[in-house]
Amino acid sequence: MINPNYKALLSGKSIIRELSEYATERGREIGYENVFDYSLGNPSVPGPVSFTDTMLELLRDSDPVTIHGYSPSLGIQQVRQAVAESLNRRFGTCYDTKHIFMTCGAAGAVAHAVRCVTVPGDEVLTFAPFFPEYTQYVNRTGAILKVVPANTETFQINFDAFEEMLTERVAAVLINTPNNPSGIVYTTETITRLADVLRRKQKQYGHDIFLISDEPYREIVFEGVDSPFVAKFYDNTLTCYSFSKSLSVPGERIGYIAVNPNATDADIIAVICGQISRGIGHNCPPSIIQLAVSRVLDQTSDLSVYETNMNLIYNKLIDLGFTVVKPGGTFYIFPKALEDDANVFCMKAKKYDLILVPADNFGCTGYFRMAYCIGTEKVIRSLDVLEKFVKTEYPEKY
Amino acid sequence: MINPNYKALLSGKSIIRELSEYATERGREIGYENVFDYSLGNPSVPGPVSFTDTMLELLRDSDPVTIHGYSPSLGIQQVRQAVAESLNRRFGTCYDTKHIFMTCGAAGAVAHAVRCVTVPGDEVLTFAPFFPEYTQYVNRTGAILKVVPANTETFQINFDAFEEMLTERVAAVLINTPNNPSGIVYTTETITRLADVLRRKQKQYGHDIFLISDEPYREIVFEGVDSPFVAKFYDNTLTCYSFSKSLSVPGERIGYIAVNPNATDADIIAVICGQISRGIGHNCPPSIIQLAVSRVLDQTSDLSVYETNMNLIYNKLIDLGFTVVKPGGTFYIFPKALEDDANVFCMKAKKYDLILVPADNFGCTGYFRMAYCIGTEKVIRSLDVLEKFVKTEYPEKY
Repeated sequence: MINPNYKALLSGKSIIRELSEYATERGREIGYENVFDYSLGNPSVPGPVSFTDTMLELLRDSDPVTIHGYSPSLGIQQVRQAVAESLNRRFGTCYDTKHIFMTCGAAGAVAHAVRCVTVPGDEVLTFAPFFPEYTQYVNRTGAILKVVPANTETFQINFDAFEEMLTERVAAVLINTPNNPSGIVYTTETITRLADVLRRKQKQYGHDIFLISDEPYREIVFEGVDSPFVAKFYDNTLTCYSFSKSLSVPGERIGYIAVNPNATDADIIAVICGQISRGIGHNCPPSIIQLAVSRVLDQTSDLSVYETNMNLIYNKLIDLGFTVVKPGGTFYIFPKALEDDANVFCMKAKKYDLILVPADNFGCTGYFRMAYCIGTEKVIRSLDVLEKFVKTEYPEKY
Repeated sequence: MINPNYKALLSGKSIIRELSEYATERGREIGYENVFDYSLGNPSVPGPVSFTDTMLELLRDSDPVTIHGYSPSLGIQQVRQAVAESLNRRFGTCYDTKHIFMTCGAAGAVAHAVRCVTVPGDEVLTFAPFFPEYTQYVNRTGAILKVVPANTETFQINFDAFEEMLTERVAAVLINTPNNPSGIVYTTETITRLADVLRRKQKQYGHDIFLISDEPYREIVFEGVDSPFVAKFYDNTLTCYSFSKSLSVPGERIGYIAVNPNATDADIIAVICGQISRGIGHNCPPSIIQLAVSRVLDQTSDLSVYETNMNLIYNKLIDLGFTVVKPGGTFYIFPKALEDDANVFCMKAKKYDLILVPADNFGCTGYFRMAYCIGTEKVIRSLDVLEKFVKTEYPEKY
């Protein structure tokens, strides 16, 4: 029998994917250049040339049996060491090889981290607005994701609601900074206060509360924005990282968990993650990609286009009277729709071939997300379309 | 809190891994050429040059944003299509693109297949001797792996025991042909009879019984050996494949599930597997590796060394009076130890720097496995050592 629980999931199609498929279909009809597709968070800039060069070098100069051979389930030893050293160099941390577990992207990292520090029935808190796949990563382990309502003034943490929901049942708190979908980066003040609350509650309840910090956008932070390294503020931190955005390699499924050396059981968490892998058939990320990223750890794609795009869109949104918090990083912006139902708002935009994602399933009704990882030339053209759309559909506002 | 179930797994270290680590350590002491390490099933021959060439071509000639971009969670459309066409060409099957789900190796394939066709509490049958990781792939889903005792005469299926254990609680049967560890290939007669039993029991119980056919060694079959394509015999077959052995790329984590077009719900099983991926953070296999294998689907490494090695070892074992069934494929051979406790036998062999794996956790006590994916020159030297070992330790046999 086909498992009925998985079968039931087929009806719940992702709104993002649906919109993206519509955009592709529409592009076929009227030309892709005429569809302004802000639906998908797919990096639009090529990775650094050094990444390609490293791949070419590995293929040309190495023994194929070695470079394509099995990786240990925790990751290739020298790769884990290189990741630890890069983090220590950049953030003044003290990671050792044993604290690094190589994963298939941040998705794999979060899925392992949650399995590692919860048992079925435990609660995991996250903060609205949040990446909708968190529901899958958490609930499929048997733990239960609960969402702290947004602080819509700043999209920093709503601490009153957080403290109320941080009961004894909470085993882990899952944050995402820089944030998808808001584009906000948690400030030093936010992280400090978050860590203080967690330490206080750990003491009060007499058990660990792990902080799972999902940081795939860590390298996309804009000029002058305060962007603290979360793990430095709280011992029980598992940092989940992906090279998808920094190196523009989302399809190559490569990332890691970095276990804070001062965390409870810090020396065995990576080994436990290796055990978790055995049961889900993940085993290890691809060997050649591990080797390649380990040689370009401190490099990134040219990420400046995202800031250029953000400024263009942000300024236009402000001009047009939108309520919107200025993003500090990522390639997302998260404005309030011009009517209460963001779904209706986005449906109207579609008529103008402007593809916007309503944010109900990001835990924030009335808002929409724009993923501006597209060419700047197209962004510029889209702004006139945006103006035409809102002035036609919402004349009372102008 | 660290999940205590996963933590408990840390004590159960894999005997294969332990022996392999010992072999590496010992190699450092006395020189690797003097340690005869038959522990690990790691391909020893390079992949076809065309695979490396294809990778180089992709990296040199394609848009990096495209080749490193996100794959759909079911796999890249043209890759799935190429896999279906290759199967149809080679085996006269009728797979369509929608029947192919790309996975991270056979491990990922089996883990998805089991999740798809069982619910917690269901039983999954497999046949001794079996790959020990099956216990993890099955039991971690909540289903229960039960092992049908071996037919030690031929290592084909023990049908009496099988029929007895094939109760109403069984949702799936998991086979592995060519087999790790026995090296045996199931004959047309075996598969025909297996399919007959399954159809009869499906009818009797009024529910599907899926056949999960794990075939990572499909391309390593020796001269003249009958090697039927399993899915042609039984509609409810999910074929799990890995390119690890055929292309010598075990570290690149690439394989697939092929759903028999006549299986129950055949058209949605791949889509359901995509949903399963979301919860375990697997998402999709690496894009560039998908693209590369799709261009060399009908090619393999030069696999002839494995047959050469097998013949050398088999003949020597027979000369020395071992009870052993001649392998029809893979790079494993599975002789009976010269004393009841294969652990003691293998410990004695270790003194001669001959690393053999006792088979208790393959579900077959009293046997041991040799993974002869090493150079032929070393195999030849190891045979004298084997002779010296058995004639010294078991003089009463000679």
